[in-house]
Amino acid sequence: MIESAWFQNAIMAVIVVNAVVIGLETSADVMASFGPVLIALDQIAIVIFVIEILLKLLVYRLGFFRSGWNIFDFVIVSAALLPLGGNYAILRALRIVRAFRLISAMPKMRQVVQGLLAAIPSMGSVILLLGLIFYVASVMATKLFGAAFPQWFGSVGASLYSLFQIMTLESWSMGIVRPIMEVYPWAWAFFVPFVLVTSFVVLNLFIAIIVNAMHEEADEEQSAQRDVILEEIRGLRQEVAEMRGEKTA
Amino acid sequence: MIESAWFQNAIMAVIVVNAVVIGLETSADVMASFGPVLIALDQIAIVIFVIEILLKLLVYRLGFFRSGWNIFDFVIVSAALLPLGGNYAILRALRIVRAFRLISAMPKMRQVVQGLLAAIPSMGSVILLLGLIFYVASVMATKLFGAAFPQWFGSVGASLYSLFQIMTLESWSMGIVRPIMEVYPWAWAFFVPFVLVTSFVVLNLFIAIIVNAMHEEADEEQSAQRDVILEEIRGLRQEVAEMRGEKTA
Amino acid sequence: MIESAWFQNAIMAVIVVNAVVIGLETSADVMASFGPVLIALDQIAIVIFVIEILLKLLVYRLGFFRSGWNIFDFVIVSAALLPLGGNYAILRALRIVRAFRLISAMPKMRQVVQGLLAAIPSMGSVILLLGLIFYVASVMATKLFGAAFPQWFGSVGASLYSLFQIMTLESWSMGIVRPIMEVYPWAWAFFVPFVLVTSFVVLNLFIAIIVNAMHEEADEEQSAQRDVILEEIRGLRQEVAEMRGEKTA
Amino acid sequence: MIESAWFQNAIMAVIVVNAVVIGLETSADVMASFGPVLIALDQIAIVIFVIEILLKLLVYRLGFFRSGWNIFDFVIVSAALLPLGGNYAILRALRIVRAFRLISAMPKMRQVVQGLLAAIPSMGSVILLLGLIFYVASVMATKLFGAAFPQWFGSVGASLYSLFQIMTLESWSMGIVRPIMEVYPWAWAFFVPFVLVTSFVVLNLFIAIIVNAMHEEADEEQSAQRDVILEEIRGLRQEVAEMRGEKTA
Repeated sequence: MIESAWFQNAIMAVIVVNAVVIGLETSADVMASFGPVLIALDQIAIVIFVIEILLKLLVYRLGFFRSGWNIFDFVIVSAALLPLGGNYAILRALRIVRAFRLISAMPKMRQVVQGLLAAIPSMGSVILLLGLIFYVASVMATKLFGAAFPQWFGSVGASLYSLFQIMTLESWSMGIVRPIMEVYPWAWAFFVPFVLVTSFVVLNLFIAIIVNAMHEEADEEQSAQRDVILEEIRGLRQEVAEMRGEKTA
Repeated sequence: MIESAWFQNAIMAVIVVNAVVIGLETSADVMASFGPVLIALDQIAIVIFVIEILLKLLVYRLGFFRSGWNIFDFVIVSAALLPLGGNYAILRALRIVRAFRLISAMPKMRQVVQGLLAAIPSMGSVILLLGLIFYVASVMATKLFGAAFPQWFGSVGASLYSLFQIMTLESWSMGIVRPIMEVYPWAWAFFVPFVLVTSFVVLNLFIAIIVNAMHEEADEEQSAQRDVILEEIRGLRQEVAEMRGEKTA
Repeated sequence: MIESAWFQNAIMAVIVVNAVVIGLETSADVMASFGPVLIALDQIAIVIFVIEILLKLLVYRLGFFRSGWNIFDFVIVSAALLPLGGNYAILRALRIVRAFRLISAMPKMRQVVQGLLAAIPSMGSVILLLGLIFYVASVMATKLFGAAFPQWFGSVGASLYSLFQIMTLESWSMGIVRPIMEVYPWAWAFFVPFVLVTSFVVLNLFIAIIVNAMHEEADEEQSAQRDVILEEIRGLRQEVAEMRGEKTA
Repeated sequence: MIESAWFQNAIMAVIVVNAVVIGLETSADVMASFGPVLIALDQIAIVIFVIEILLKLLVYRLGFFRSGWNIFDFVIVSAALLPLGGNYAILRALRIVRAFRLISAMPKMRQVVQGLLAAIPSMGSVILLLGLIFYVASVMATKLFGAAFPQWFGSVGASLYSLFQIMTLESWSMGIVRPIMEVYPWAWAFFVPFVLVTSFVVLNLFIAIIVNAMHEEADEEQSAQRDVILEEIRGLRQEVAEMRGEKTA
């Protein structure tokens, strides 16, 4: 029953309705008119989710936890049951994360996310390199500009954030580097190479993903082509071998 | 006659002239001097378009509506005939959309647009994922920052727009995140991952299109190469088979 | 002599020195100290260029104008001889364009530029489509927002420039769309689709170039691989044919 | 011993600890509490690095300098021993560069960096072209706009920086070109083509790297495929040759 299409579609519908309900709760007007209804709908959705998880646990037992997606569902639903002591706005804001259960409920979406996650390991070394460049540049920027511009480079953490902003090219020159150059006219010699190097490394990150994606694609493709040719050649070889056998006979 | 080159070129010329006329109408100076002429030219163009559509309808009858491009032309020309009650600036502004008929009139342009549209289905799942991420992030941002920054995150709609701006990296840090961090110093922990995740997903959207485009390209290419080799091998196989036949004989 | 390496290197050296001289002339300090020397050096460079062109004309005669690069050189050097009536700053600023002769003087640079130019025709239809989208959007923006925001959308020309800025994503939201949304709250419905559509079309422009570049690359590559295999198969076929001949004999 | 895994891991640990120590030294609070400890740890790290280099020199002698990575280590460690006369903030800021020794210490990181560096020569001509465009545009911008906007285009150096900012699209229009257009309304005719041309050239730079990366990838791939087919054909050819030999016998 749990694997049946109507059960999965019903759960997906509950997830979508629940996501819309949590969205509507952000509007003060809607809450004033339909507040109790929305809160009741939210409670019902949680009850349905808990029953779903319990059913799956009953059927699959410990095998349930073998799938990463099941653990994902379990953690999200369990979190909804934790008693929220008080009005922690952040914890209540996190409730909408439940909408991400749509990913685990839709096979196509799972595939997309798995594809995205699968691309990450191949980027490991480049990400480590980028992290190293960021750390070194942050410590340098803190020492060089921290005293004069504490709002941007006052600590290694602040520098990391500012350098991330500079890497995205947002207001890097007008907002940050030009004001700094009024105090340290040589500051461009730090920031321009930083922009060039990080852009180049990020570009290579992208290229690594593209080449990887195409490699797999091409691999399958060419193997298929090769197999057609090989089959033909092997057929021929077989015939020649038979012919040779006949002759000897 | 409708399919003849001169007829199609004439229609294209009318579309271009009509587009230029509508463009000129935006200039108050030009309208003061040539206003009546331009309005008359616009009326003539509409009459020509209507005659063209009627001719095509007469010739192809209901088959006319089988092509999406014909429906596109029909809707645009019909819209021009609707009585515009009053001075609706928006409706008058939409008249220039007629210039898009140039796309349906030029085979090369049709191809390009069909190519662009053909790339969309393969992006379906990723766009759905991106939509989900945007919805969840908007609801969270509204709950977390809505009270303190109503101009950016006052409602889910406002948050969607602001997060779209942040995804395009426009003024994301200096304009939005730094002011927010003065109230909520941990705000970077929401926005920096958002920028990273959406950039990564959008990048994968692009890669999907590239890989798709190259796959088709490579597919044809390699099949052609394979066929040349296969033909050669089959020729050889034929010869060996004949030789074997001769021997047996 | 004109084709000899030392002659070409000498011309290249003159181009570089001339470019540096024109660069130095922008500094008031340098002009105060070495002004006459720089102007003399510039005159000498022009004389050398004229002699070079005349020599080439003498040797190749009308064949000289068959190469686009020669015409490029001819136009640039001729322009240097035009009598500049008065202090036209723009014409004097254009003198540095002579440095582009370095491109025609270096075979590697020629190749790169020819490669770049060769990529343009394949983009023709997409550029036309982009132009059409820009024109339609400009006329619409002028009609919709021209009255309220004449500094950005006062005329079709101003709108074209503003939309180009928006396509590059520079200050599109904080600088332009948010101020407009204070007057017309629905303005996002015009600009967000514009950003999405132009980004998507430009992306496809890039993909077209990439696929094109790789297609040629892959084409050569695979033909080479195929030829190795074909040669082997044909050798085999030859042998089988000989064997068959021997048998019949 | 030097090549053993534990020795290399120990050195990597020292590099990481040293990088963290230098990072902590940027915090005034941490320095107040643990200053002497951090400085001592830094001294110990330098001593370890010197011993490591001396050991390697002893073992490999002059062969040590054959590897670029060894020279890289040698220069960085030697720089740490130079007597810093006074409080040169810049020299002290450069100490964190030692963290880059992590690259030479981790084989995976070395590979990534070598891959990045290997991509540069293939970009040589395009970078030269980009440099030429920048130089010509800077000299022109200095002559055209230098007098009215000395803060951006006062000298060739300032223009180079401003044009780099414009190429990254940061505040190019709202920050720089719109103010200039208030004085010179035709300024867009200089900057819009500059943005288009540099974007196009940079894009082609990226494409060159992508095509290069995929070419190598595809090359290996296809050669492997071809070899499988060739082996099969050669086996067949061998058999046919043997058969022919038998027949003659």
